[in-house]
Order: sequence, then C-alpha cells, then structure tokens
Amino acid sequence: MIGMRMVDLIAKKRDGAALTNEEIEWIIRGYTDGDIPDYQMSALAMAIYFRGMTKEETAALTMAMVHSGEVIDLSSIRGVKVDKHSTGGVGDTTTLVLGPLVASVGVPVAKMSGRGLGHTGGTIDKLESVPGFHVEISKDEFLRLVNENKIAIIGQTGDLTPADKKLYALRDVTATVNSIPLIASSIMSKKIAAGADAIVLDVKTGAGAFMKELAEARQLAQAMVDIGKRVGRQTMAVISDMSQPLGYAVGNALEVKEAIATLKGNGPHDLTELCLTLGSHMVYLAKQAPSLDEARRLLEQAIDDGSAIAAFKTFLAAQGGDPSVADDPDKLPQAAYTHPVTAGEDGYVAGIVADEVGTAAMWLGAGRAKKEDAIDLAVGIVLHKKVGDRVRKGEAFATIHSNRPDVRKVEEKLAAAIRLSPRPVVPPPLVYETIV
Amino acid sequence: MIGMRMVDLIAKKRDGAALTNEEIEWIIRGYTDGDIPDYQMSALAMAIYFRGMTKEETAALTMAMVHSGEVIDLSSIRGVKVDKHSTGGVGDTTTLVLGPLVASVGVPVAKMSGRGLGHTGGTIDKLESVPGFHVEISKDEFLRLVNENKIAIIGQTGDLTPADKKLYALRDVTATVNSIPLIASSIMSKKIAAGADAIVLDVKTGAGAFMKELAEARQLAQAMVDIGKRVGRQTMAVISDMSQPLGYAVGNALEVKEAIATLKGNGPHDLTELCLTLGSHMVYLAKQAPSLDEARRLLEQAIDDGSAIAAFKTFLAAQGGDPSVADDPDKLPQAAYTHPVTAGEDGYVAGIVADEVGTAAMWLGAGRAKKEDAIDLAVGIVLHKKVGDRVRKGEAFATIHSNRPDVRKVEEKLAAAIRLSPRPVVPPPLVYETIV
Repeated sequence: MIGMRMVDLIAKKRDGAALTNEEIEWIIRGYTDGDIPDYQMSALAMAIYFRGMTKEETAALTMAMVHSGEVIDLSSIRGVKVDKHSTGGVGDTTTLVLGPLVASVGVPVAKMSGRGLGHTGGTIDKLESVPGFHVEISKDEFLRLVNENKIAIIGQTGDLTPADKKLYALRDVTATVNSIPLIASSIMSKKIAAGADAIVLDVKTGAGAFMKELAEARQLAQAMVDIGKRVGRQTMAVISDMSQPLGYAVGNALEVKEAIATLKGNGPHDLTELCLTLGSHMVYLAKQAPSLDEARRLLEQAIDDGSAIAAFKTFLAAQGGDPSVADDPDKLPQAAYTHPVTAGEDGYVAGIVADEVGTAAMWLGAGRAKKEDAIDLAVGIVLHKKVGDRVRKGEAFATIHSNRPDVRKVEEKLAAAIRLSPRPVVPPPLVYETIV
Repeated sequence: MIGMRMVDLIAKKRDGAALTNEEIEWIIRGYTDGDIPDYQMSALAMAIYFRGMTKEETAALTMAMVHSGEVIDLSSIRGVKVDKHSTGGVGDTTTLVLGPLVASVGVPVAKMSGRGLGHTGGTIDKLESVPGFHVEISKDEFLRLVNENKIAIIGQTGDLTPADKKLYALRDVTATVNSIPLIASSIMSKKIAAGADAIVLDVKTGAGAFMKELAEARQLAQAMVDIGKRVGRQTMAVISDMSQPLGYAVGNALEVKEAIATLKGNGPHDLTELCLTLGSHMVYLAKQAPSLDEARRLLEQAIDDGSAIAAFKTFLAAQGGDPSVADDPDKLPQAAYTHPVTAGEDGYVAGIVADEVGTAAMWLGAGRAKKEDAIDLAVGIVLHKKVGDRVRKGEAFATIHSNRPDVRKVEEKLAAAIRLSPRPVVPPPLVYETIV
C-alpha cells in the first residue's frame, strides 16, 4: 500500500485495467477519511462510467463500502434474514404488502427504511399515515419485536455505508450516477450493511423506472446477483414492469389502503401477483418452504385465512399504530377534495406514463423534492384503468385526491399521461425475467 | 445562460455531444471564478478524455482560457510577432539558437518564458548562466528592446491564462493530462495570451518526448494547427524526432555553449538543421521572406556572415549579460569534474534513450523536480556519439560534467541508456512531417 497514488489508480482504470481488491479498499478508505479529494473520486467515477468494472471489482467495491461504516448485527434474530429491495417506481406498494405477508408465514422481516425523495414518501412516511405509528424505537426493541412478531421497521440508524452516501452525492452532481457497477454496489452495500443474509431484488424497467430499457435492467440485476454470489449473500432478482404504475394508488395513505386490500385478497391483480412472486422467493430463501411453488401456496393461504392481515395489525400495534385501520381504512388521512378525471373519447388504454402520474402526485404534495419538504399523507391519485382496459367517453379513468380545490394542472398532466387506442391493446407482461 | 447546470453539461459531453461556444465560455468562466468546483471539472475532463472535442469546441476552449486572464498587447512592436513553441524534450537548445537567428534577419522575437520543472532548467535558467544576464525588465523596456534589437526575453508577468493553470494542475492529479484537445488548447491559449500573431510549433515524438508515438504527435500537431486557423493565428507544426537527445549537450550552461557554436555555424548537425527548418517557417510567417527557400537562405547567410552571433551578443548585453561569452564560452559556469563514459565494446550506436539521459542530467542537479529546487547551471552531460555513429571499445561516448566527484550512478544510467549494435545502424529522420 505504501506509495499507492490515486492518480495512478485513476489512470489504471481509465486505461481499462481492473483494480485489485487492495486498491479498491485503499480508495474507499481514503475517500471516506477525506484523504482522497472529491475531484479525484469524480474522475475515477467517470473512468468507471466508461470502462466498467469486473465482477470481482464490483464485489470488492461493495464490501469496501459496507466496511466504511457501521454494520447492523441481526444475529440475535432467529432465522434467515431476507431483505427485499426495489429499484423504485411509481405507486410501488410492494414493501407494505410483502413485509406482513412473508412475516405471517415465518420469515423474519427486520426492515430498516428511510424517507427519501420522490413522487411519494418512503415506506416510513406511508406507514406514518396510520395514526400513532412510529419508527423511533430502540435497536433492542426492534430486535425483540422481530423475534416476537417476525416483523418490525426502524428508521435509518447509525452511520451505515458513509462511503456510499458520500460517493452517491458526488455522482449526483458529476453525471456519473448511471453506471451499472456503481449502482449495483451502492444498492448491495446498503442491504448488506443493514444485516441481510439473503436479498430479493425487484428491478423495475420501463418509462417509470430508472432503467428505461430491459437490457439495462437485466445488466443491473445480473450485476447485483453476481455481487451477492461473491460475498456470500444469496441474491435473486425479478425484472418487473414499470411502464405503467403498479396497482392503482399513488400516494401515501392511498397506498396503505391498497396494501390493506391486497393483504385481505382484494388488491389489484398486478400488485398481488408481484407480491406473490417476490414473496415466494423470500420465503424460499428464508428456508420456510422447500420449493417456490410451496412457498407461493403458503402465501396464498395466509391471505385467504386472514393471517396476512393479522400480521399487519400486530405489526402496526407493536409500533404504536392503530390496528383498526385494517378493518376501517377510512380512518386513514382523507383528502378534502376528490375529483374524477374522465375520458374524452371511447377506446382502450394503450399507455399510462408512470413518471407523469408520479409527477402529478408530487404536484399534489404527496412527495418531497427537497429533504426539508413536508409531505401531505392524504393526497394522491387513484387510477381506475390500467393498460389494456376499455374506457368509455365520460368514464373516469382516475380520481385525484387533493387538499386544494383547484387541480386543473394535475388533471391536464394526468390526461396527457394516458394514451388511448381505438383498437384493443395487449397489456405488458408483469414480470419479464427472473435472475438467480 | 440562465439555468445552465454543470452536471447537465458533463452529461452532454459524456454522451458524446458537442458543447456550444456559449457553454464552454460559461464553464471556463465559472471554473476560473470558483463557482464550478474541481470535482465537476475533473469529471468533465475525464469525459473529454474519452469523448474528445470537435475542432470548434477545442478552439472555443482555447479562446475561453485566453480570456480568463490578461492578454499581452504587443501591438507597439513593429512586424508580425511569431512565437515558437516546443512540446519539450531532452537537450532541446532550439529556443536559444532560434531567437537570435531569426531576429538577425528582422523577425521580432518578443519572448516570455518561464523556469519550469524538468531535466534541465527552462530557457531563462539557461540564459542566466551568462554572467549578469537577467529577465527582470519592465514591460516598456521589453517592448523597446524588441523594437530596437528585434529580440528580448521577459519572465512570466501578469496573470496569463489562469483557467489553464488551474485546469492543468487539476488534470495533473486526475489522470486527464493525456487528452489531445486539452493539451492543444492549453499550449495554444498560452501562446495567444502572450501576444503571438503567428505560431510555429515543434512537436516532438519518440521515447524522450511526451508524445511517444508519431500518430499521437500528428494528432496533437493537427489539433493545434486547426485551433490557429479558427482563431486567426497562422500556425504550422513540424514533427521532429526526440527518440535521442537533440544536439549533444544536456545541461544549462552546456546548452548555451552549444547554442553559441550553432549560431557561429559550428553546431551539431541535427540542431542546426532543425533550427533552420523551424526558423525558415518563422521568417516566412513574419513576412521577412517571400518563400521558405528564400527564408532558409537568409538564415544560412546570417550564420555565415556573423550577424546571427552578433544578434545574440546584442541581446545578452541589452539585458545585462556579458556578451564576451560568445567569444570565450569558457566564461560560462564550469563543473568541477568531468568524467568520460566509455564503451565496453565495439559497435554502432543503435539507440540513446533521451528520457534516461535527461534523468541522468537531473541527478547531477541540472533540473528541478520541485519549484523550490535550486539548479546547478554548470552540470550536465555532453554526448559524443549519436544514433548511427560508430564507437570503439574504450572510446568515450559521453562526458559527465559534475560538481560531485562520485558519478557512479549517473554513469550506470548513461551506459544503460545507450544501446550498441554490431551492425551499422540507419539514424532516425530528424523531421517526420510538416503540418500547415
């Protein structure tokens, strides 16, 4: 390590060679400590953007970032800790459903989550629409709850992957976000630092996703599965559609309501199906079922016999929330105004640009643009139609839930986001591929 | 310009698009002012490394850097101000010879020069080996001397191309030096800011040069000539050999001595020939001769009739130097010890690694590694053989001029730098190409 110089390592990567594990560890340690300045790190990130990284480099980068900060010790929780990660999309209610669902069949769900920026709040924001619910619990309490109820959620605690935080902030302002090995190692390092034994990834693709193209999504999924293999965390990825929003609801309380319906067996078909697919893999990886088919059967049964929604209620109550919202979802925050958005002609829904629906929800106040922004938990959009559905002139294809009477701009945004066709339309597949 | 964001411009270049003149000006102004941080500039530099720049972008970058600081006004000097620039090599005495040589036939030489780092000192260091010579003259005195004697030299004054200085320092530590458009714009911006109307470039290629390969040297030369064309400065480039040192002397006073011999017509063949080639272009661009052939004839005559060495003496005297060194070069600083390096076998010189000879000179104290280092003007190396020459066992192929008695390491370095062949060797060409 003596005499290692960052400029030489940048040149090495620039020229297409692979960095050694030792070099990557040296870089990440130096960057975290402030010995390597941002201007060298951004040059390296751009070189990585152009030259990529080998599987070995990507795994080394992941573990170097894991070890840059605290690593959560979940060893006192019995069972295989399986974490799920979604690359993000619009109206993605899967986390709210999956947690209680897999917990109800015995999979320990020890979730650490954040608030984040975006079209709607993060998982914690959504859950906070349940009166009384809070995530400010001690780590001991958190571990105890997972052992007792199989599920608990805690806010981001400690200083996890500081190298990733610093590097991500730098990439964000230097046009180096969009690099598969950098994205893959960033996601995986956070999951591993949060204590996951095994990881199920939901990689979204389509207009509403970060990865617009299937080929890109596949590369990212493969890169993350490869990291998991190399660092001893069983990892699998589902590539799912985000050309249109998942489910019908986009908003915080609205998504909780949709999650409740789904846990009771009355949810949207696509959301239910994706939760069963991802959930089966979680149950299988957690060794709670001998096969994927058996895992799926267990989950379907948990929905049918009420144990899934019961797990949700137990979970809410354990963290101060009012479990009766599961019986009476109207106890969740309600917007002052609802406003239907109607079709101007007959036709079939040919496309719903997920991004635009998300932006419309954000305009209503459902999400944050800046960390300091307040969120309106009640507002959002509920779609009534999905791609392939028939719609008649004058029929509502969506309802706007707003706390302001004037929603003209949001209405226009939504109308522009939905494309109709005079001829029947085949809906896109829900799951494109599974990578194990 | 409102709403321009550096991150978007980095992404634009990263994706292979060309930046507009306005965008480049905005970047360079922001970077010079400190509004754009180093970490964004280094990411852009790395993107430029991979994506290159169009001719238009390179010219815009050059002029943006010119306008980032002071621009020297040489308009009070009569005639076309032609500047010469060499990309640097080992034992490159051309500037010392060319200045007085072209001045003696009427070309105004208004030279601004620095000290710099390297195997030997810069032009000013070399000239300071003449007793009394100094470059601390006022700008008015400088302009007056050029009008009177056609030649004067002044130390770097004012704040020329601060953007280039800042960017170069950044490139140096981010592995982004080696980019043709960045090198070309850096060199050209300095020449233009120093007031040149026309520019003659000596682009070196070979083991002792920055551009090791002819193809690279050609690209750099072409890029600089293209910039000159676009910004209204007539520019031409000679691509010359630097696989072995130019001339015989490597050292400060030793090179002045060699320059004196060359101005008198007794210099090494290669140095003389390159000076006549570059000088002809300078004379022609300065409109002091109607053709290159006529220009060359004028220069040869100036050497023959003594006006070249006379111009050198006038130049030295005007800046406090003792002109009698031209008659008695032994008045220049002399090293305490001379040590011949002899051949261990018979043969023909097949290669002299210029870089290694330069390093040997530096070990003797002829150059600076850091800005603060002192230079020993007396020391250096004088070769007695060049590639193609025959050498006999026991014959000296070089002499070490040192102020320390122990020169074993230097001797070993030199012995290793020279390669002998049992068969006759054809020397490399001196000039590969001329690009106009």
